[in-house]
Amino acid sequence: MSKEDVGITVSKNEDFSEWYTQVVLKAKLADYAPVKGLIVLRPDGYSIWESLRSTFDKKFAKNGIRNGFLPILIPESLLGKEQKHFAGFNPEVFWVTHSGTNVIGDKLALRPTSETLAYTMYSKWIQSWRDLPLKINFWNTALRAEIKATKPFLRTSEFLWQEGHTVHTTQEEAEKEVMKILEIYKNTVEEELAIPVTIGKKSEKEKFVGAVYTTTMESIMPDGKALQMGTSHFLGQNFSKPFEVKFADKDNVEHFAWQTSWGVSWRLIGAMIMTHGDDKGLVLPPNVAPTQVVIVPIYKNDEGKEKVLFKVDEIKNNLESKGIRVYVDDRSELSPGYKFNDWELKGVPLRIEIGPKDIEKQSMVVAKRYNREKAALSCNEVEKISTILDEIQKEMLKNAKEQARKNTTDISEYIEFKSKIEDGGFLNAPWCGKLECEEKIKEETGADIRVIPFGSENSNLKCVYCQEQSVSIPIFARGY
Amino acid sequence: MSKEDVGITVSKNEDFSEWYTQVVLKAKLADYAPVKGLIVLRPDGYSIWESLRSTFDKKFAKNGIRNGFLPILIPESLLGKEQKHFAGFNPEVFWVTHSGTNVIGDKLALRPTSETLAYTMYSKWIQSWRDLPLKINFWNTALRAEIKATKPFLRTSEFLWQEGHTVHTTQEEAEKEVMKILEIYKNTVEEELAIPVTIGKKSEKEKFVGAVYTTTMESIMPDGKALQMGTSHFLGQNFSKPFEVKFADKDNVEHFAWQTSWGVSWRLIGAMIMTHGDDKGLVLPPNVAPTQVVIVPIYKNDEGKEKVLFKVDEIKNNLESKGIRVYVDDRSELSPGYKFNDWELKGVPLRIEIGPKDIEKQSMVVAKRYNREKAALSCNEVEKISTILDEIQKEMLKNAKEQARKNTTDISEYIEFKSKIEDGGFLNAPWCGKLECEEKIKEETGADIRVIPFGSENSNLKCVYCQEQSVSIPIFARGY
Ligand SMILES: [Zn+2]
Ligand SMILES: [Zn+2]
Repeated sequence: MSKEDVGITVSKNEDFSEWYTQVVLKAKLADYAPVKGLIVLRPDGYSIWESLRSTFDKKFAKNGIRNGFLPILIPESLLGKEQKHFAGFNPEVFWVTHSGTNVIGDKLALRPTSETLAYTMYSKWIQSWRDLPLKINFWNTALRAEIKATKPFLRTSEFLWQEGHTVHTTQEEAEKEVMKILEIYKNTVEEELAIPVTIGKKSEKEKFVGAVYTTTMESIMPDGKALQMGTSHFLGQNFSKPFEVKFADKDNVEHFAWQTSWGVSWRLIGAMIMTHGDDKGLVLPPNVAPTQVVIVPIYKNDEGKEKVLFKVDEIKNNLESKGIRVYVDDRSELSPGYKFNDWELKGVPLRIEIGPKDIEKQSMVVAKRYNREKAALSCNEVEKISTILDEIQKEMLKNAKEQARKNTTDISEYIEFKSKIEDGGFLNAPWCGKLECEEKIKEETGADIRVIPFGSENSNLKCVYCQEQSVSIPIFARGY
Repeated sequence: MSKEDVGITVSKNEDFSEWYTQVVLKAKLADYAPVKGLIVLRPDGYSIWESLRSTFDKKFAKNGIRNGFLPILIPESLLGKEQKHFAGFNPEVFWVTHSGTNVIGDKLALRPTSETLAYTMYSKWIQSWRDLPLKINFWNTALRAEIKATKPFLRTSEFLWQEGHTVHTTQEEAEKEVMKILEIYKNTVEEELAIPVTIGKKSEKEKFVGAVYTTTMESIMPDGKALQMGTSHFLGQNFSKPFEVKFADKDNVEHFAWQTSWGVSWRLIGAMIMTHGDDKGLVLPPNVAPTQVVIVPIYKNDEGKEKVLFKVDEIKNNLESKGIRVYVDDRSELSPGYKFNDWELKGVPLRIEIGPKDIEKQSMVVAKRYNREKAALSCNEVEKISTILDEIQKEMLKNAKEQARKNTTDISEYIEFKSKIEDGGFLNAPWCGKLECEEKIKEETGADIRVIPFGSENSNLKCVYCQEQSVSIPIFARGY
């Protein structure tokens, strides 16, 4: 195989979409399954999801949330119980109609989301205030038939996600939970994936079907399109009433409970690839990288090899004892140059090169993936590697913030809006709060209200579309 | 709710099946979903699965196995590619025929197992010997329509499991992997769940459809029925040929690869419930218990309460600092007696009771769940709790071994076989190796060959059925 076949053959700037697909496939994160719309995750891709899951689980546990399991099949009659909710999902639902050669009476949906099933169970489990709050999270997949072209992590008919469902005695407590989760989402995405997000509310038009309101975190991708990174919904009593999620309070009076639901999916991995990758391939933030440091030993003969591998082993053990995930690439018959390209394609945050000359000088070469800078490091300074990884993590977030800032514009005139939207990016534009303006803008420019940031309420400006008094300054953008 | 409604109302000996169901539901491990055959796991049930997953993951990783993700939908054409394999699963397959209102052309199966999908991918990923061994495990669910009565963890149409799929350059390496996995299964089940297992091979009749041979671990349950606890299959080249899983060796000649597949499911949780539970409810081995120690503070007035809770907090912090999972039951308005019953029902391995008199004596009462023994422990000896939990874990395995031994009989005469099988249990009986005898025994007694234990080859005896020369001494039993 020639070097050209192995590496990324298009530039991120020139053909973003093709670049993205090549990175996903060639870095061996994922591959297309035989059924249109479905993908398979290879270990390097799934490992990122495992890392996120582990971080979320720790934060969920601290917040009193535990995990459970729900089956994938939901009867049609149950899915249809909350009508608006059902109407929102119905066209995308996969239906099971047979088991073996037998026809199934009440046909079964593959879960598009589990509110209806979870709350049927909750209704049985909750009797009194003592049973609340009930906070359960489910790591599973959801299925929604996708008719557009498959895009790994971004547009697939089955996706890995978590869906959390909580029940509370008061509206206040439920609304606090909605915000608490959104904060967990934001700090995890920023700290682990080094992607800045903007949090706020969705408009009425864009909220989750069945929610009272939806809070969201949104990011702007390097191609100028917005990506919804996660949502946390206040459901009020919209589901507790049809599903009879009720509790007897201390005074023994029955009340309908207050509920929340929230989720993030493997889209986060897609966002990470887009935000940090470059023309050489994937760039992984150290916190989620399956391999954080790769060591490439360099030698020309057997004598050199022995010396080098001895030192490499010492460094490897030292790093592993500090909990760093290290891999030594001692594949024979492959040149150091080939290996460098290979690990850059795979996005490993830090590469250590050691040859006979380095050993003479008691030093090694350390190459950072994200900015491709090389430096010498003394063998006595191996313990600095931890710090270097932390610095890379922080620098990557800083760079991503700068990238996002450049992709964000304040707009007051609609003519400017229409011109600017062609370049993509987040457009901060005042809005009167009316559905009509939101719909007209969408129709004429393709831009949605992605998020109405917290604190962006503003009545001093004029709606970018109708010139009437503004209520807020939402972020408009074309989205994924 | 009266005490009778809360606790288990039947005896394990008198009505094992009803006892089992009550334990699962009342200990809040699982509940029935709205669709027949499906169950939901509540946090205390799912947590046991998470604990097993975490143990297996560590052992898999040490053995070079990493996790991946496969979608749940497999096209009919692909599932049918290995004919014998397909014929084995076909009657139980759930079929997706529609997405929204659109008919799907090549109808889609919900995975009954993923060999066909995994190997389609592997065939793309493997080109050379450098790509091998390829060892990937998948934590997911499998679906097989179950027409008999639902039994949580034991008989459900969707079940949590892991399926591992490995590919090797040589037969020898693949066969070693089969055994390595079986050993991991055995030591995990014995060390974590305190259930003894017997390992060996399945007969030709009972092997996995598509395998060259199947190795298995089997346990005998207290009701005398055998339970298959996990299987590890040597697939030979049975799948690599139809799926073209090929590699170019060092000499550049192409070969079909050698493969294995293996899995354990949440049946293990069912086995744990049956093996250890008693008339008071669930009994959890400490290693997998979501809560290992529950502390019940006892007091009569506010002054006493303050003193007791102060001490309780100290003990709790001390235990938590040692990594022990502790819960303090300070629910007001509930009597200590009610709480004792509640935590016994839930199977928490160790209960600590502390009241004002204990505090005066600088001591506490420690009650073991598995044998219901109580003892006083000085407050200075809190660090002994770790050791006590370890002892409980070991004692539970020892007791389970003794229970299994009592349920095992050596048989040489068929008349004795037919009489003994009515009491249940493992019957060690010599066999000539012929399918005909195996089938006749099954037909006449309902007993299968559960496992031909390693080392049970024996040509000095006579087949329990036909009196011809024996080849081995399999374990016969009626099974779940
Ligand atoms: Zn307007
Ligand atoms: Zn015979």
